[in-house]
Amino acid sequence: MIDLTSTNLYREIHQQPAVLARLLVEERETAAALAAEIQRRGVDHVVIAARGTSDNAARYAQYLLGAHNGLSVGLATPSLFSIYQQPPRFGNALVMGISQSGKSPDIVSVLAEAQRQGALTAAITNFPQSDLGRASDFVLKLHAGEEKSVAATKTYTTSLAAIALLSAVLSGDDARLAALDQIPGVAAQALALPGIDRVAERYRYMSACIAIGRGFNYCTAFELALKLKELTYTVVEPYSSADFLHGPLALLSDGFPMVVVAPSGRMLPEIRSFMATAKERAAELVVISDDAEALGMARVPLALPAGVPEWLSPLVAILPGQLFAMHLAHTRDYDPDRPRALRKVTETM
Amino acid sequence: MIDLTSTNLYREIHQQPAVLARLLVEERETAAALAAEIQRRGVDHVVIAARGTSDNAARYAQYLLGAHNGLSVGLATPSLFSIYQQPPRFGNALVMGISQSGKSPDIVSVLAEAQRQGALTAAITNFPQSDLGRASDFVLKLHAGEEKSVAATKTYTTSLAAIALLSAVLSGDDARLAALDQIPGVAAQALALPGIDRVAERYRYMSACIAIGRGFNYCTAFELALKLKELTYTVVEPYSSADFLHGPLALLSDGFPMVVVAPSGRMLPEIRSFMATAKERAAELVVISDDAEALGMARVPLALPAGVPEWLSPLVAILPGQLFAMHLAHTRDYDPDRPRALRKVTETM
Repeated sequence: MIDLTSTNLYREIHQQPAVLARLLVEERETAAALAAEIQRRGVDHVVIAARGTSDNAARYAQYLLGAHNGLSVGLATPSLFSIYQQPPRFGNALVMGISQSGKSPDIVSVLAEAQRQGALTAAITNFPQSDLGRASDFVLKLHAGEEKSVAATKTYTTSLAAIALLSAVLSGDDARLAALDQIPGVAAQALALPGIDRVAERYRYMSACIAIGRGFNYCTAFELALKLKELTYTVVEPYSSADFLHGPLALLSDGFPMVVVAPSGRMLPEIRSFMATAKERAAELVVISDDAEALGMARVPLALPAGVPEWLSPLVAILPGQLFAMHLAHTRDYDPDRPRALRKVTETM
Repeated sequence: MIDLTSTNLYREIHQQPAVLARLLVEERETAAALAAEIQRRGVDHVVIAARGTSDNAARYAQYLLGAHNGLSVGLATPSLFSIYQQPPRFGNALVMGISQSGKSPDIVSVLAEAQRQGALTAAITNFPQSDLGRASDFVLKLHAGEEKSVAATKTYTTSLAAIALLSAVLSGDDARLAALDQIPGVAAQALALPGIDRVAERYRYMSACIAIGRGFNYCTAFELALKLKELTYTVVEPYSSADFLHGPLALLSDGFPMVVVAPSGRMLPEIRSFMATAKERAAELVVISDDAEALGMARVPLALPAGVPEWLSPLVAILPGQLFAMHLAHTRDYDPDRPRALRKVTETM
C-alpha cells in the first residue's frame, strides 16, 4: 500500500493555506486594476469559459459576482466558438477564461474571439505565459506552484480565491477583504479535521452517490463530485437541492448515500429542510457543516471551522471533500496521483 | 404487469407529432412579436430561468440562439433572487422563464425582478394564466394539452419547438421555418422505431450509466439522463464529451454503459472520435444517430430518421431516449406514470 503522506496529492492538499496566502498578497494589485477597468467600461455582464475543476470555480463566480457585484454571469458554450464557429456577440461583457494550464484550445478560442470583438478579457491561470494568458487583457495568476497530481486541489481553491479577491476589491468593501485574509488560517484548521480515513472505510464499496449544494456552495457539490469521480471511480452526480427535487428525487432508496454541503448562512434553512426530506426516504447523509443542527442530522458528520461568512465558505467546505476523496482512493488501493485514463493537461476542441 | 399502451406516458409520448404541429401554427404570431421587440430593443444577451426538464430546454436555447442569432445566453441562478435576495442587474437582456406549470416560486421570482428592472421578459409555459405567464411581457404557449404523466415528454419537445420557432423567426430565414415545419412528420417516424422494448431488457440490471451529447445535443444528454433517473431510478450522469475528458473519463471500465447522442452535423466527427476513445476503454455504447458509421460503432444502435438539420436534431434525438426510458421502467415493473417520490408540479424556493 502507498504511503499517503508521500503522494503529491497529499502534499498539494496541505499546501493550500500557504498558496492561498500568497495569492491574496501577490494578486491584489492586478485585481484592483481589473476592477477599475470593469467600472470604467460599465461592464454589466460576465461570460466565463472553463472546463472540469475550473468550470466549478466559474460556478462560484456566478453566485459571488451576482450577489455582491450585481453582475449577471453566464457560462460560455465553447463549442460555438471552436467547433461550430458561430460565436455569439459579447456586447459589453467581461469575458473570463479559467484554466490551470491555460492550454485547452476550446477555452482559448472563446477568449480570442472576445478580443476580436473588443470585449474586456481576463484569465485566471497558473501559467500567465500560456495561450490563454496571452489572449487576455488581465491575468490573475494562481501562484499555486507546480501541481503534479492529476486531480486539481490547490489550483481549485486558489481559483476561488482569485474570484473572491476580484469581487471584494470591486465592491470596495474593506471588511470583505479582511474576511478573505482570514481564509488561509481557517483552511489550515479545516485540513486538521481528524478521522476522515476511518470515514472513508465505510464507503469502500459505495458505487454511486449524490453530492448536494446550493447557492454559493453549488460549486462545492460539483467539485466534490469531480474529485470522487477522478480519484475513486465512483459515479457521483452533483445537484442543487432545488434541481434534485425536480425529478432525481426518485433515485433515493434505503441507504442511498448523499454528501450534503451545508455551511451556515442564508441557504442553510433550505438545505436542512432538504435533508429532512432525504431522511424521510432513508438516504444516508454525510454532512459537511459548521452548524450543530445540520451535523446532528448526519449519519456521518464532517465538521467545518466556525465563523466563516457564507460567501467565503466554498474555499473551506471543499477541503474535507478533498480529504475524503483522497482517503477513499487510498482505501480502495488506487493511486491518488495517477487516476486511470487521465493526464494532467487535457486539451479539448 | 401494466399494459404500457394504456399509460399516460405512452399516450403523451405518441402525441408529440400532433402537439408540435399545433404549436408551430398557433405561436407563429407571438414569436414574431417577441422577435420584433428583441430587435427593437437591441437585446444582446439572454438569461433563462428554469428547472428540471425545462432547464434542459434552456440548454438548447443557449446553443441555438447563440449560433443562429448571435445572442449570448446564460442560465439564471434563481437562489440569488429567491433565497439570497441579491439579484444581479439584467441590463439590456431578454429574461426568459421556462416552466410547464408556470408555478415554481424561484423561477417566478427571477421574472418578477426582471420586470421590476424594466428588462424584456418572456415565458414558455403550458399555462399562460400562471404566475410565470403573468410576470412576462410575452408568453409562448406550449399547446401540449394536459400532461398527466409525472415525467415530462411532450412539454419538453414543445418547449424546444417554441425556442426553435423564435430563433427561426428572429433570423428572418424562411428556409429555417420550412425545415422546422418538417419536424412533426419526422418525429412520427422516429417514434415508429421498432425493438426498443427488447433493447431495454438488456439493461434490466444496469445501476449507473453516462449520457453523452455536445453542442446542440448537450440538452439531449441532460434530458435523456433525467428521464432515466425519474422513470428507472438509474444513476445517469449527463456530460459533454469535452467535459467528460476533463476528469470523469477515469470512471470507465469494461462494459461501463454510455448512451451517446450522435446525429449528423458539425459535431459528429468530434463525437465519433470520443466514441473511439470510449471503446478503447471497453465501454458499452448505445448510440442514437442517423449516421451509419456512428451506428456501426455501437453495441446497441438506435436509428434516427435521416435528413434532419443539426440545429433541429434535438427535437427528434430525444424520442428514442424517451421510449428507452419508458421501456426500461416497464422491464423493471415500475409504474411509468407515477415515479416514486415525485409529483407533477414541483415548487421550489
